[in-house]
Amino acid sequence: MGSATPHIGFEDWLALQALYADYAMALDQGELHRWPGFFTEVCSYRLQSRENFERGLPLCTLAFESRAMLMDRVHGVVDTIYHDPYWQRHVVGAPRVLEAGDEGIRSEASYVVLRTKRDAMPEILSTGRYVDRIVRTPEGLRFAERHCIFDNDLIANSIIAPI
Amino acid sequence: MGSATPHIGFEDWLALQALYADYAMALDQGELHRWPGFFTEVCSYRLQSRENFERGLPLCTLAFESRAMLMDRVHGVVDTIYHDPYWQRHVVGAPRVLEAGDEGIRSEASYVVLRTKRDAMPEILSTGRYVDRIVRTPEGLRFAERHCIFDNDLIANSIIAPI
Amino acid sequence: MGSATPHIGFEDWLALQALYADYAMALDQGELHRWPGFFTEVCSYRLQSRENFERGLPLCTLAFESRAMLMDRVHGVVDTIYHDPYWQRHVVGAPRVLEAGDEGIRSEASYVVLRTKRDAMPEILSTGRYVDRIVRTPEGLRFAERHCIFDNDLIANSIIAPI
Repeated sequence: MGSATPHIGFEDWLALQALYADYAMALDQGELHRWPGFFTEVCSYRLQSRENFERGLPLCTLAFESRAMLMDRVHGVVDTIYHDPYWQRHVVGAPRVLEAGDEGIRSEASYVVLRTKRDAMPEILSTGRYVDRIVRTPEGLRFAERHCIFDNDLIANSIIAPI
Repeated sequence: MGSATPHIGFEDWLALQALYADYAMALDQGELHRWPGFFTEVCSYRLQSRENFERGLPLCTLAFESRAMLMDRVHGVVDTIYHDPYWQRHVVGAPRVLEAGDEGIRSEASYVVLRTKRDAMPEILSTGRYVDRIVRTPEGLRFAERHCIFDNDLIANSIIAPI
Repeated sequence: MGSATPHIGFEDWLALQALYADYAMALDQGELHRWPGFFTEVCSYRLQSRENFERGLPLCTLAFESRAMLMDRVHGVVDTIYHDPYWQRHVVGAPRVLEAGDEGIRSEASYVVLRTKRDAMPEILSTGRYVDRIVRTPEGLRFAERHCIFDNDLIANSIIAPI
């Protein structure tokens, strides 16, 4: 502890929870076309192993720097990557607010993503932490940065849809 | 995104979170007799595979239409079904509010339910999404509809206690 | 249901969520030195099987009664216990508030803790329920009691870091 909880009003708290929940549900319901819309035009989305993140190493599994790159990834996932179909399900803990101000919010949250293939038991696909920088826009809160730092280096097959 | 977060006041938000948490804890602590009390007299509880739900097919694993039917199910689970004992544990994400008004709230949330049998490791029993319609009653918020849409068609053994 | 949700204001709710999230993140990020600081000077931390808890049996896997004992445990975990390294990840549901007043808050929450070893898939290390008594201090909310009641008697290897 040591420092007080950053002040955040109820409307901001609710909007933050809604952003997190809506993001996860869009991915889990297969509404991938909605994914880039959670980000600002210039943004940073990264999927990176915890080992690399903690050592300050640059290598990421995925790294995108604009909404246009996210749209390109959606195109890849939906139209070009050949993969065994599966469903995924995020369960995300409450966000831990690190900073909140006029420019936006810095927060993080732990997640687990479960993957279910047809005729198979659910498995843990990924578990880790979101490290986020969120900004206010006329359309509401958006991710300027969403870095998904996953604990499990070993992934069964591949991660296709975003985390 | 595209649409704003529905307006919901703090008291409603707290009551919604309390309803979700109390529901899950009642089931996990084996207080099954409390389960029908979370619903309105006429209600809809369904446990349905995602595959059937998304195709609009009617078949459900469980489907009840009144509190009396829920009470009958409790009687079945507690007094008549012979099954290997297990404990279950819900971990539920924050609700995503879709509508909130004078009549009530429409919301959904992702869940995972873990099952632990004596002398065995915990397993993922069910993972999916609650799709809820909640109404205001003199006793507080109650489920008019709780539809549990599970991702995993394949279930080890059976689902005995409600999800 | 039966009883109304205890009244808790937004500031308290936010502080409670922050306490839970900060606690979990400190453990998951390996900041074990921060762990005793979440408790009051005289406190009760217990890690106990659900079976023993529900039967009122005293045996716990871990039981500490002061912040000094917690500091001693941290010393043990960090400096003396020889174990295979692993990362852990808490995903914790929203707290269910049982009492809230001037002295503090009684609440509980369901959790799952995942463990990931290098070059291995994530596993469910522990799942269960926090049973907490939280008090107000000049530094903010602190645990006077945090009892971790785990469903799974069987634990692969050992629990090293706190839950």
